[in-house]
Amino acid sequence: MQEQAPEWSETEKQIAREALSTAYTRETEALITEIRQKASAITQMNDVWSLSDYLNAKRYDIDGKYDYRDSTPIFVLAKLIKEGWLHSDELAGLTPDKRAKVAALARM
Amino acid sequence: MQEQAPEWSETEKQIAREALSTAYTRETEALITEIRQKASAITQMNDVWSLSDYLNAKRYDIDGKYDYRDSTPIFVLAKLIKEGWLHSDELAGLTPDKRAKVAALARM
Repeated sequence: MQEQAPEWSETEKQIAREALSTAYTRETEALITEIRQKASAITQMNDVWSLSDYLNAKRYDIDGKYDYRDSTPIFVLAKLIKEGWLHSDELAGLTPDKRAKVAALARM
Repeated sequence: MQEQAPEWSETEKQIAREALSTAYTRETEALITEIRQKASAITQMNDVWSLSDYLNAKRYDIDGKYDYRDSTPIFVLAKLIKEGWLHSDELAGLTPDKRAKVAALARM
């Protein structure tokens, strides 16, 4: 998309991208640990298929969440804060109104 | 399906079902061990998604393979022997012509 919300400076976009990258690393490292733990506890086929269902759901969630679009970083950032993968102080550098919007959405 | 190949006696059907059950137990126990090993070796997200792909493929394969139909036990039994989950001597009790057909298909 050529059209972008004009109020995001290049610096702010970079901050958003880095925040997403940080959150992605945290979430995926936690997922790797979780999958290893779940797998080590498998004793029957139901556990295997449950793990498979869980991985499919996680893939859908993560692929969608980190599919960064310049037009909607506010929502992505708010979701990541709400889920605990990002801290609001990692958005330092964004304008106060953007941080306020993110914080408000993260509380919903 | 009400129609069944008439040449399978009840005893033979029972032998086929038990052979399938034996193979299912072997294959799924091996899969559980394999998944635990694969998961313990996960270090990055590519490994996670590879595991997910593998589980989806295995589910498709196993769900289809053990979906027993009276009409086609010859093919299922041959496939299981070919894959190593069943031994031909576990089909003792089937008529010689059926065992010969299974053995011929398993070599294909």
